[in-house]
Amino acid sequence: MKEKDKKLTISKIKEGTVIDHISSGKALLVLKILGIGSKTKETVSMAMNVPSKKMGRKDIVKVEGKFINKEELNRIALIAPKATINLIRDYRVDKKFKVHLPRIVEGILKCPNKSCISNCSKEPVISRFYVNLHENKVIAKCYYCSKKITEIDKYLTG
Amino acid sequence: MKEKDKKLTISKIKEGTVIDHISSGKALLVLKILGIGSKTKETVSMAMNVPSKKMGRKDIVKVEGKFINKEELNRIALIAPKATINLIRDYRVDKKFKVHLPRIVEGILKCPNKSCISNCSKEPVISRFYVNLHENKVIAKCYYCSKKITEIDKYLTG
Repeated sequence: MKEKDKKLTISKIKEGTVIDHISSGKALLVLKILGIGSKTKETVSMAMNVPSKKMGRKDIVKVEGKFINKEELNRIALIAPKATINLIRDYRVDKKFKVHLPRIVEGILKCPNKSCISNCSKEPVISRFYVNLHENKVIAKCYYCSKKITEIDKYLTG
Repeated sequence: MKEKDKKLTISKIKEGTVIDHISSGKALLVLKILGIGSKTKETVSMAMNVPSKKMGRKDIVKVEGKFINKEELNRIALIAPKATINLIRDYRVDKKFKVHLPRIVEGILKCPNKSCISNCSKEPVISRFYVNLHENKVIAKCYYCSKKITEIDKYLTG
């Protein structure tokens, strides 16, 4: 085996979306944000804690045969603000961009306030949060009850 | 790139544990069973829905630098009864075996019976289930309250 191939934890894909430079250990949460689970039909590969020159350790996710839209990808910035996206066609990078924190996210965070209308079983309302950076930390504020979340990982619903 | 390399979704590892022939879509649950999450320090790679001659589609998990013990690996049979284990040393398969359904599992299933002693907050007791195959389907029965579980995926606590 070539030395170069030994280093490549997950191999190149022919076509699809590569999410690179994910903060170490966060790949499983990235899958959750993208709604990738046991019912997903695409070929998905993931590597956690691979060596990275820039980041020390990083995670990577590759989804074959699917170009995930930018809006969905930007949600990743909630937990992995340094993530870079590569859209691949015929084994080459066709487009490359960084994720940007969205101003509002819907349906992927659960409000910790039990009395919030978004947690009411009689009148189910999709959760909606304003998202901001404060001293390099993501803070989400519930659109309905103004409850703030700083531990984003904990309240992800996928 | 060589044709063979294109087909290898996640590359060979130097040393560690490879879990192959996981039922398609179940790799994330395998990680859960093995307690692999965002705090894991090992390099872990995973592929879902890769083509397989035997199974049509299958999942694979590779954990570098760690030889997971047999007892822990056998728990995988709860959700992926055809899984095969390869222990790798210096890029070669050193040991190979199939997972076997354990007779009892502790701490990885949550009893659906809210009154079960294993769900009692005052006297926390680690969950314990007897495991059996019935018509090729895994059935788990609570050691404490005899409640039966057939949808194993749903009650995994990781």
